[in-house]
Amino acid sequence: MNRAFIFDVFGTCVDWRNSVARDVAAALPEIDAYAFADAWRGEYQPAMQRIRSGGRGYVKLDPLHRENLDRVLERFGVDVPDRDALNRAWERLDPWPDVVPGLTALRDKGLVATCSNGSIALMSRLARWSGLPWDAILGADIAQDYKPKARVYLASVEALGLKAAAVTMVAAHNDDLVAARAAGLSTAFVARPTEHGVGQQTDLEPSEDWDIVASDFQDLARRA
Amino acid sequence: MNRAFIFDVFGTCVDWRNSVARDVAAALPEIDAYAFADAWRGEYQPAMQRIRSGGRGYVKLDPLHRENLDRVLERFGVDVPDRDALNRAWERLDPWPDVVPGLTALRDKGLVATCSNGSIALMSRLARWSGLPWDAILGADIAQDYKPKARVYLASVEALGLKAAAVTMVAAHNDDLVAARAAGLSTAFVARPTEHGVGQQTDLEPSEDWDIVASDFQDLARRA
Repeated sequence: MNRAFIFDVFGTCVDWRNSVARDVAAALPEIDAYAFADAWRGEYQPAMQRIRSGGRGYVKLDPLHRENLDRVLERFGVDVPDRDALNRAWERLDPWPDVVPGLTALRDKGLVATCSNGSIALMSRLARWSGLPWDAILGADIAQDYKPKARVYLASVEALGLKAAAVTMVAAHNDDLVAARAAGLSTAFVARPTEHGVGQQTDLEPSEDWDIVASDFQDLARRA
Repeated sequence: MNRAFIFDVFGTCVDWRNSVARDVAAALPEIDAYAFADAWRGEYQPAMQRIRSGGRGYVKLDPLHRENLDRVLERFGVDVPDRDALNRAWERLDPWPDVVPGLTALRDKGLVATCSNGSIALMSRLARWSGLPWDAILGADIAQDYKPKARVYLASVEALGLKAAAVTMVAAHNDDLVAARAAGLSTAFVARPTEHGVGQQTDLEPSEDWDIVASDFQDLARRA
């Protein structure tokens, strides 16, 4: 196969917010589970930024999520008996309804792989949970760095044995596509207007003339 | 999932000899396709040995196969119009008949992944060809070295977020299991007595008391 599609996962393929809130609500019924999920996710970029900037060596996302959980539990003034178990909420994220049929159709047009900041350990378990039919798990772990650093996209392209122009980065986040395009990849945008809840203000529209703009993954499979 | 099975692929999962000979026979009807396939495979260990010993930096198996093809074509005094196309024979290897049902059953007991010297590019395309339901493609590319170097097994274990003892290396080659056991992994042997043809003399029996000895992958799924 001389073509591939690589995917952002959190937000683009899976609904992390409702899924994490579900597990938080089960573990901590006394708090606002959505506020907790948002606060936990809010620690995501700052934790990776220390690594991207060279202030800390590469650490997989799983222990970063775990450190962030400690911080957010403290902020909310609550605790759970098994923090590691709650941290595995990130392995149990439900796909948006179009994702599995869309990926399945897209497999006829090329290889499909992750290009996520999630680790191989996390992404392989999440794929099992949500039924995502990946040909390979690429992204942060194989690059030992975090998006939007160019090396993460380029390591994923190189692992597939393809040129960057033959690989389409698919994301619901414009900044991911800005970085992928700068690295030479083709780009596809699929809006996820409720990733952050009903009042979402960001990434509702494509910010540039991406190579493909699709309404969902089934539409993407038709346009690709 | 707190358990995983990682697999040698060439010989253990797929019948490389008959599959390569089929493509060689189509491209070069004038020669003995099995002799050619054996000679091509015969260059495999020496090519990797230069890299394992540090005499050459890590080069993926795909270009090594291509270099070896040049050498074997010259030795046989023949040529093909498109050497790259023939090199892709290694992406079109048929599975042994028990492999897909066995891996499918084994997925209920843990993650299943490759721990092959084949690249991610090669292993992902081969998985498509042969229908192998991997959760992840691990092995040489993520370790940037070749089995039986310990780091290849350990990088694969680490990528899955597990301890070595929770991971079973499955192979039809005793030397692969010797190295995996030395690295702390659990071991499973499945003989492939016709990998090298009907006169095969090697790896007909387990050479040590491997943790599992199974007659095929479906038997492995039952014993695991």
